[in-house]
Amino acid sequence: MTLLGEFALIDRLLKPLARGYPGALGLTDDAALVDLPRGRQLVIAKDAIVADVHFLSGDPPELIAGKLLRVNLSDLAAMGADPLGYLTVLARPLALTDAWLERFAAGLAADQQRFGLHLLGGDTVSTPGPLTLTLTILGTVPKGQALLRSGAKPGDDVWVSGTLGDAALGLRVLRGLAVTEDEALALVDRYRTPRPRLALGRALRGLATAAIDVSDGLVADLGHILDTSGVGAVLDASLLPLSPIGCGIPGAREAALTGGDDYELQFTAPTERRAELEALAARLDHDLTRIGNIRAEPGLDVIDADGRRLDLDRGGWRHF
Amino acid sequence: MTLLGEFALIDRLLKPLARGYPGALGLTDDAALVDLPRGRQLVIAKDAIVADVHFLSGDPPELIAGKLLRVNLSDLAAMGADPLGYLTVLARPLALTDAWLERFAAGLAADQQRFGLHLLGGDTVSTPGPLTLTLTILGTVPKGQALLRSGAKPGDDVWVSGTLGDAALGLRVLRGLAVTEDEALALVDRYRTPRPRLALGRALRGLATAAIDVSDGLVADLGHILDTSGVGAVLDASLLPLSPIGCGIPGAREAALTGGDDYELQFTAPTERRAELEALAARLDHDLTRIGNIRAEPGLDVIDADGRRLDLDRGGWRHF
Repeated sequence: MTLLGEFALIDRLLKPLARGYPGALGLTDDAALVDLPRGRQLVIAKDAIVADVHFLSGDPPELIAGKLLRVNLSDLAAMGADPLGYLTVLARPLALTDAWLERFAAGLAADQQRFGLHLLGGDTVSTPGPLTLTLTILGTVPKGQALLRSGAKPGDDVWVSGTLGDAALGLRVLRGLAVTEDEALALVDRYRTPRPRLALGRALRGLATAAIDVSDGLVADLGHILDTSGVGAVLDASLLPLSPIGCGIPGAREAALTGGDDYELQFTAPTERRAELEALAARLDHDLTRIGNIRAEPGLDVIDADGRRLDLDRGGWRHF
Repeated sequence: MTLLGEFALIDRLLKPLARGYPGALGLTDDAALVDLPRGRQLVIAKDAIVADVHFLSGDPPELIAGKLLRVNLSDLAAMGADPLGYLTVLARPLALTDAWLERFAAGLAADQQRFGLHLLGGDTVSTPGPLTLTLTILGTVPKGQALLRSGAKPGDDVWVSGTLGDAALGLRVLRGLAVTEDEALALVDRYRTPRPRLALGRALRGLATAAIDVSDGLVADLGHILDTSGVGAVLDASLLPLSPIGCGIPGAREAALTGGDDYELQFTAPTERRAELEALAARLDHDLTRIGNIRAEPGLDVIDADGRRLDLDRGGWRHF
């Protein structure tokens, strides 16, 4: 089950990523040991990405590594958790070069330093199929303070951080959408390099009633909160925060509603917390925008500035 | 990035596996929450298996699920840990049927009940390649009592549990080795269905100086202990515990030395603990066999009953 090449790979590329966390045991053992600070819970999530399904084979290896780690960090952000460590498995096709793997490991190294976490376990297996990367992320949160999807209450505001839609537009640029060079760089960067909103997630403990990161798309992800909380919502599409670049591109509003890959946080909070949230936005220097309200009646209505309901039709939005 | 079919799949097949562990949050959230009992450390490991690399596509789905879980439980056993939970990601080819997935989930359900753990997170992604299964396992151990690979000392005995080689012979049977029908059943079962030695691992806390599970093969796995502990060893090949079936098959001793997939525990312990270990074997009703000794001089010598050194040559063992 194991090639000699695997051990060399782990030694040279992965072991350095485990330095500085004693419980990783230098990746020499069957498992890693993790101590939790008193009064904290472990938060754990797992995700996988497959070449040419979730990323493009030609993407720079550093950025694929970064996206893998950041998508999982975004899950921690959505729970209000602080990063601790991660484990990763690479299922690698034989054609994958050592140079590619070195660049991939360099990408992990840069981002684990940036976000303050360590590799706790790593393994490689070979596959006759496409490169498949899985990552398990560990974080901690003070006991009972994790942000869940289940706490949204009728009357709560629906908030979203940052701007929406640029990641989906970036994917369209990679697939041929014509924009200026500067726009292309900005949009593709937004698609390739998620910014996990960890500081925001941490600050939302005790403030938000429910939270999720925008990975599948604003509407789909709000749907998860509504289903889990047993409530409904009205979203005002005219309030969606678009980026200055997005504003100028046809289809940006649809991308913001359904495009996915933004990795902003969407959350609900009681109306009486508005001032605190506005102060928080100023403190973090990160926009927070109110885009709708939770209601008792199930379902989600998206309305325009005139209060008319919009319906998602093939290829775009139309009025009812 | 997400198909509707994925949610239906998670709802129907995976959510039931999370019942009974509140921190799994019914798999509705981005992550799971785990509390550790006071005085215990988390033990975490991650492994992946790929169709037609680590298992055969035609293997029964229940047994593939069982092998995936048990291989990881064996890592916990080697650390002396108690199982807590697991997360799994299925990268599934489009051709994989719902019926296959149902049988796979049934296999997980049966084994998680048998071994006392719960699903804490599950995800599926689609792949144009072969079915790829990854699993992250969580266990706990009293603080500071995990069995590591690094504690072997010159003079220690080398022990191994159970019998060796039958799993490798089972793989040879699947590839055409001719044996009787009863022998084939027993050997293939040994290959397909590892028995993680959790009770033994737990009992070895404070008793073994180093431990590992036999997954790559006895010699290769002992090599990991020797490298990590900075010692060497002498193994007496004539002492290797073969099964009654294995004894009758040519090549069984080589399979026991290098075959892998046995998932027995190999460990080291001071000679003065022999009586305790023999009592432990009786109590657990599980054979423990002394097969060699740790020495200060690096390297591994395998000797025969006459004390002559054996060398692994192409296709078999020969005398120096």
